[in-house]
Amino acid sequence: MNQALKEAKKAFLLGEVPVGAVVVYKGTIIGRGYNKKISTNDPTMHAEILAIKEASRYLRTWHLEECSLYTTLEPCSMCGGALLNSRIGKVYIGTRDPRMGSLGSSINLSNIKSFNHSFKVEFGILERESRDLLGNFFKVIRQRKKLSKKD
Amino acid sequence: MNQALKEAKKAFLLGEVPVGAVVVYKGTIIGRGYNKKISTNDPTMHAEILAIKEASRYLRTWHLEECSLYTTLEPCSMCGGALLNSRIGKVYIGTRDPRMGSLGSSINLSNIKSFNHSFKVEFGILERESRDLLGNFFKVIRQRKKLSKKD
Repeated sequence: MNQALKEAKKAFLLGEVPVGAVVVYKGTIIGRGYNKKISTNDPTMHAEILAIKEASRYLRTWHLEECSLYTTLEPCSMCGGALLNSRIGKVYIGTRDPRMGSLGSSINLSNIKSFNHSFKVEFGILERESRDLLGNFFKVIRQRKKLSKKD
Repeated sequence: MNQALKEAKKAFLLGEVPVGAVVVYKGTIIGRGYNKKISTNDPTMHAEILAIKEASRYLRTWHLEECSLYTTLEPCSMCGGALLNSRIGKVYIGTRDPRMGSLGSSINLSNIKSFNHSFKVEFGILERESRDLLGNFFKVIRQRKKLSKKD
């Protein structure tokens, strides 16, 4: 998760919501990603999607059953769905997303009967660090908004 | 939807599950995509994702509020989530996916209270054509399996 946090910090520096993710296969990181949605003008460029794409390229298969994904923020429904499509083995999460979180907080895509895959989810890995990074980001955003109103 | 079907046929010829999608903005198609999951070894390469990415590139924004997406098969949760993230205006669907469909059949991501967006969905546009194309594809797959068992 430390490596996922490192990715999230890259997003922070770009002015993006700081979320980072890595895919691990047999103890090695084979996919990395950080949120690039605004800087690329592409709504699909979330950290988890980019990490999954890189891992699939590395393994030359879309099957990631033997992999785990570590992400600093609970995935949205797009990323939760991508994890299902990749047949991911397990997902480790830093902090919850009460509004958009799709692996337990708002909805739970990880274990739906009609779906062709399910996977285990573990919350609370480096939770404080993941949450603080997001908190600091939104604090900066609010301060900027206040300043721009004063001008 | 005829253009989405045209995309789906490209997937059929590649040996992929035949699903196609287009994004329309003010009467013009600005994004196209067909399923390339197997041929690219990438679990995120669904028709809808590719059409959304192309439309965002065209408009130079991740906001697709003024756009509609036409897809031959009801989107999975990854694609349903991507449509939410893109703030899509409306989604038109050919045929339902009872197992994986995320816009009404298995789950319904289009109208969840805690989410930051919702959109309208219309089913049954060129439904027979969309369903028949999928049916023919799976018929070929089954025939191939039978033949390979005989060898």
